[in-house]
Amino acid sequence: MRPTKRAFNFNPGPAALPLPVLERIREELLDYRGTGMSVMEMSHRSAEFEVINSGAEQNLRKLLAIPDDYAVIFVQGGGSLQFSMVPMNLALPGKPVDVLHTGAWTAKAISELKKGVLHHVAASTEAEKFTRVPRAEEIKLSADSSYTYLCTNNTIEGTQYHSLPASPAPLVADMSSDIASRPVDVSKFGLIFAGAQKNLGPSGVTVVIVRKDLAERADKNLPTLLQYRTHIKEKSLYHTPPTFAVYILGLVTEWIAAEGGLPGIQKRNEAKAGLLYDTIDGSNGYYRCPVEKSSRSLMNVVFRVAGGDQAIEKEFGRGAAAANLVGTPGHRSVGGMRISLYNAVGLDAVEALAGYMREFQRTRG
Amino acid sequence: MRPTKRAFNFNPGPAALPLPVLERIREELLDYRGTGMSVMEMSHRSAEFEVINSGAEQNLRKLLAIPDDYAVIFVQGGGSLQFSMVPMNLALPGKPVDVLHTGAWTAKAISELKKGVLHHVAASTEAEKFTRVPRAEEIKLSADSSYTYLCTNNTIEGTQYHSLPASPAPLVADMSSDIASRPVDVSKFGLIFAGAQKNLGPSGVTVVIVRKDLAERADKNLPTLLQYRTHIKEKSLYHTPPTFAVYILGLVTEWIAAEGGLPGIQKRNEAKAGLLYDTIDGSNGYYRCPVEKSSRSLMNVVFRVAGGDQAIEKEFGRGAAAANLVGTPGHRSVGGMRISLYNAVGLDAVEALAGYMREFQRTRG
Repeated sequence: MRPTKRAFNFNPGPAALPLPVLERIREELLDYRGTGMSVMEMSHRSAEFEVINSGAEQNLRKLLAIPDDYAVIFVQGGGSLQFSMVPMNLALPGKPVDVLHTGAWTAKAISELKKGVLHHVAASTEAEKFTRVPRAEEIKLSADSSYTYLCTNNTIEGTQYHSLPASPAPLVADMSSDIASRPVDVSKFGLIFAGAQKNLGPSGVTVVIVRKDLAERADKNLPTLLQYRTHIKEKSLYHTPPTFAVYILGLVTEWIAAEGGLPGIQKRNEAKAGLLYDTIDGSNGYYRCPVEKSSRSLMNVVFRVAGGDQAIEKEFGRGAAAANLVGTPGHRSVGGMRISLYNAVGLDAVEALAGYMREFQRTRG
Repeated sequence: MRPTKRAFNFNPGPAALPLPVLERIREELLDYRGTGMSVMEMSHRSAEFEVINSGAEQNLRKLLAIPDDYAVIFVQGGGSLQFSMVPMNLALPGKPVDVLHTGAWTAKAISELKKGVLHHVAASTEAEKFTRVPRAEEIKLSADSSYTYLCTNNTIEGTQYHSLPASPAPLVADMSSDIASRPVDVSKFGLIFAGAQKNLGPSGVTVVIVRKDLAERADKNLPTLLQYRTHIKEKSLYHTPPTFAVYILGLVTEWIAAEGGLPGIQKRNEAKAGLLYDTIDGSNGYYRCPVEKSSRSLMNVVFRVAGGDQAIEKEFGRGAAAANLVGTPGHRSVGGMRISLYNAVGLDAVEALAGYMREFQRTRG
């Protein structure tokens, strides 16, 4: 085997995984705990996999302190399928879906609602180019809505809610990019969904946390696989689940618990983002974050280099990659740089990046 | 590390993977070919993953000799989601879906059709307890159908088509349990779908091979993620794919090619199934396969022990597990034994099983 080289990985998702988790996967890959099989080779109906499956659920329940009247299910299709599944299951006839529009991901959710679901954009920061989330006084909810929809962290725009909007209707959150990155009061939500591939594991498994009574809103004539109740009833084993991804999610949630649970992870995440924002803000304007301070994301730090000079930004990204700092370019739709600091990214990676930024500014600025 | 023990794995899916594939995954797990990352940690928009993704597609195209007017896409949700996606995309107004009913899996497809799709059971072997697939003369197709639906291999009943039924309408096949196990003339089909977890890789990725013109039947108002055309247009990268599962599918298809492609794999599979059926048929009735010879599956061999004595069958399964022969009990809905012989199961495993069977009969029969 060649000696292992590990990159400082700032990818926006799929993203870095904790090294101890990868090492554990490697150790168990040909023979999971004496079974003589990889987890990938086990029947999802086996006693061994049932332990893995329920263990992953229990880990999440403990970490997020999920109340008993909520189901936790593992499904496929990512956030993109949830954009359709949520209204299929939760939208009530004649009662609009209220949406807080904060960028590219809520735009995708809205475009699925436009296919025949009554909805209302209750707030939008599009006029501010999505450089912040809406303020409480800007949100105009419907009198009688099915639910209020938001995206708690916006990966492309680098914004995040740091307090939850009030809503008499159930809050439904796309939490794909900040689930399990900080404590959250699940009881404030009707439904939370998240692809695992940023903070919880590899791509291919999607976590849905849903208040059980809300799952009963759905028409039983919907496709079986697109009803939350199917997966609730069968404990995510109605059909063959993405077994290996669920196993890894279990390992990652164990790792988070060992790091001090969500309070511990939040401290780590605040330290990482703090160092990076300090580096940006202390650069005399050479680096500039367009996001309003109160809305800045701890997960995705976006910034421009040298006033947004595209040639210099390209050079910044190339030089970073050459220095083993992977994934720094911003989303192709907005340009600039984007540094994703999900749970598994270490402070050492951010220190290395901050050093690179100072050196880049010194030689090029 | 503890010394690696490997089981003889007859699981019905997820199922055995080729050992060289698992070893390769293990070797690359922390650092994929010098990138400093696991494949799980790479952006699906990275140049590296695009090579993996298109490589997996190209491998499948070569193995199955897929014509250029067919798209090959990787989606999520397994066969169970395809039971709904196929009619959503391919059923035409006023033109029924013809179904050949051969057991538990076509029953599931039919129950999704019952939710509002015009359909017609064009043949059924339910009266024969699904111990064979329909004969050509039993199939009564509609005059003007949207497509003819069949399941080429029935895992629970142990049956398989060894010649394709004629159909003027496009044939749509659930090939989840025998794709890439033998040569197939793709041009005879309108659409083929298959979860990877039996012959092609781990669970969590589903292969769809679809004639491109048929994908244009779909209403554009369907959920974006449930339209085949979305995935065709974006080469399976519309949203975050199950990247690790696609990577493994690429490795497994490479392994199949190295084993002689589909003709080579077919020979392997025929030798394995031949040995097992010979052992059953040569047992003077102690073991008995209920399936008509012309419909016997090369993938899932079902049999009863001692006239279907449940206590003895339980003992057979327990003893097999103790002898490192995993996954022999039949599906809980039908009982008996079921031996799954997917591509990655070696002849050595079947030889070990045949030895166990003879010994079990000698001491218990």
